[in-house]
Amino acid sequence: MKEVIAVVRMNMMNQTKAALTKAGVDAFFAHAAEGRGKGFVNAAVVEGVESGYEEAAEVLGEKGKLYPKRMVTVVVPDDMVEDVVDAITAVNQTGKPGDGKIFVLPVGDAVRVRTAETGAKAIS
Amino acid sequence: MKEVIAVVRMNMMNQTKAALTKAGVDAFFAHAAEGRGKGFVNAAVVEGVESGYEEAAEVLGEKGKLYPKRMVTVVVPDDMVEDVVDAITAVNQTGKPGDGKIFVLPVGDAVRVRTAETGAKAIS
Amino acid sequence: MKEVIAVVRMNMMNQTKAALTKAGVDAFFAHAAEGRGKGFVNAAVVEGVESGYEEAAEVLGEKGKLYPKRMVTVVVPDDMVEDVVDAITAVNQTGKPGDGKIFVLPVGDAVRVRTAETGAKAIS
Repeated sequence: MKEVIAVVRMNMMNQTKAALTKAGVDAFFAHAAEGRGKGFVNAAVVEGVESGYEEAAEVLGEKGKLYPKRMVTVVVPDDMVEDVVDAITAVNQTGKPGDGKIFVLPVGDAVRVRTAETGAKAIS
Repeated sequence: MKEVIAVVRMNMMNQTKAALTKAGVDAFFAHAAEGRGKGFVNAAVVEGVESGYEEAAEVLGEKGKLYPKRMVTVVVPDDMVEDVVDAITAVNQTGKPGDGKIFVLPVGDAVRVRTAETGAKAIS
Repeated sequence: MKEVIAVVRMNMMNQTKAALTKAGVDAFFAHAAEGRGKGFVNAAVVEGVESGYEEAAEVLGEKGKLYPKRMVTVVVPDDMVEDVVDAITAVNQTGKPGDGKIFVLPVGDAVRVRTAETGAKAIS
């Protein structure tokens, strides 16, 4: 059982939802987040911060290049992880910075509260 | 050490908080999320999406049946996981779709920032 | 590869961002949350709840001492975890309750959606 966390563009939620449903994922959760990828950092500003320039720290801290994102979370059996990752990647890949990231984390157990079912049954 | 993530109804936060406190959990975090469970997907719409109907994709994507939820996160020692899961399940179980899910994830380490304590001490 | 989740004070986001950047972390995500630490629970209220006093349950549930926080999430290679945890701790430690918590979780894999790179490359 794995948790797949995808950080995607705000405006890609609908496509992501549709892709997940097509991949056989019924249950998922999402919430607003803000994020920054590798490409968004101005090296000169970082250098300024490292050199102790207060102003640079302020630029980095306040403007700081955080963009609104959606974090989508699904928990699926191990044998669905590849399909789910591929589905999310396929619809979110524009080739431009900001396409997002996907993380796969191990999950020890799951419970469906309504029935108290655990394990694979809880997420099937 | 485990992270217990519970996705519960918006209006069950107070009961869930009280249940966690009674189960000996002092520290926890929560945030708004939206989610969808297995029971909420209209099979005909999914079929329409798979057949390439744009309208179906729109229905699935836009209306898409996401409901407001609360995600509650606690990190507890291994020997408290069962009690915590049982406590959350007990107060949230109505038997109707939408009761929520609980996930248990392994945690490698924890730090209490105030004291820089790590491991079991950080969450005790 | 590890996920480092830090729950910090709202007003410490800028310093935390700057500290992460200095520690070599380019990409991270953050979202609003609310939380409660060990020090915030009134033992008498908990006792009241345990004794079945409805009023105590209401106090615990409604007032319940949840404070607004920011949850910051970064995914880094194993050999950066210590530096990242130290950096977050250093800027957030005031010595007063509410300084926050840091959790370290194992991550199985990561994907950079733009390039479909996986593993270490996805987070470098």
